[in-house]
Amino acid sequence: MKLHEAPSPNARRVQIFMAEKGIDYKRVRVDIRAGDNLSPEYRAKNPAGRVPVLELDDGTFLAESVAICRYLEALHPEPNLFGAPGLEQATVEMWGRRAEFNFAQNVAGAFRNITGIFKDRETTVEAWGQVCAEVASQALRMFDERLAKSAYLAGDRFSIADITLGVAVDFAEAVKVIPLRELEHIARWRAQLASRPSWSAK
Amino acid sequence: MKLHEAPSPNARRVQIFMAEKGIDYKRVRVDIRAGDNLSPEYRAKNPAGRVPVLELDDGTFLAESVAICRYLEALHPEPNLFGAPGLEQATVEMWGRRAEFNFAQNVAGAFRNITGIFKDRETTVEAWGQVCAEVASQALRMFDERLAKSAYLAGDRFSIADITLGVAVDFAEAVKVIPLRELEHIARWRAQLASRPSWSAK
Repeated sequence: MKLHEAPSPNARRVQIFMAEKGIDYKRVRVDIRAGDNLSPEYRAKNPAGRVPVLELDDGTFLAESVAICRYLEALHPEPNLFGAPGLEQATVEMWGRRAEFNFAQNVAGAFRNITGIFKDRETTVEAWGQVCAEVASQALRMFDERLAKSAYLAGDRFSIADITLGVAVDFAEAVKVIPLRELEHIARWRAQLASRPSWSAK
Repeated sequence: MKLHEAPSPNARRVQIFMAEKGIDYKRVRVDIRAGDNLSPEYRAKNPAGRVPVLELDDGTFLAESVAICRYLEALHPEPNLFGAPGLEQATVEMWGRRAEFNFAQNVAGAFRNITGIFKDRETTVEAWGQVCAEVASQALRMFDERLAKSAYLAGDRFSIADITLGVAVDFAEAVKVIPLRELEHIARWRAQLASRPSWSAK
């Protein structure tokens, strides 16, 4: 099994997931700054041109972080990170999607539109980046309120929803385009995430 | 079981899903134009303030269309719309996410930023809406290429990925903010979707 990856929040989500499961894999570095992910060769692996992509031993390519992780969960059910089928699984997915749509997507929108890092390949609108930064910052309150009542995002145990939000918050802090509020419950939860061996997976 | 809903692409995704499964439910109309989804009462059901929300008989509220559908799939496994666990499920999720991130999100971004329909509650940037429209239009080629080789988005049978993309394409056509290309394979596939009884679920 090979992971085609680049230093990016989405690759990190899969790296942490694999570390939690104890899955061993080979790495293939994709040079995004050089545009390798937009080459015809790479697009044959993933027509959307994104990282990461999981290459299975039979040559099948699987893209999209959550799809990759769900595949790995089926192969390696323990520790369970998607929840038990039924309400728990749906709750994990609900919080994972809130983390993506309300926070992570806005962090990405702020980063790309404010810094113009991919200006050579996409149209950026700085005013939109500022809107994204503000929306992402506001959204943190919803997660803080949730974490005031719940040890982890989807309930009393760690799940893929925590990986999604935690990686996005770390990235937002690193790239400094979001006014990160000092929120008590998010701070407590981030310290818990950082104490997991998987959190430093690279 | 009650579905809190409003006429919207996300509510329609769940309505079609439930029609495919033959699930009976009550409807509660949420008036989004009047901002009912932003009231404290509604936010107690869904802090993200979005529709739809599924209310279970025990009073639990479940939000996010795909999370709702996955819960319903666990309760009513047939017809299977998420794929069998393992590679098929991951492939359905991969294509469903591509439909969301590459197309549906950009259609929503174009619609909201170009028309300013929610200007009373969010900052809109028209130039960004134009970027979204172009990106969404370009993304259709990837789906057309996929549908040249595959009967449905995730393989040889209908899945939730088809619901996600099909509803978004219908919406894009209805609101007229996207230059919809005449793409042969998408046209063939849309005709197949429209012929399903579930496609006219309301």
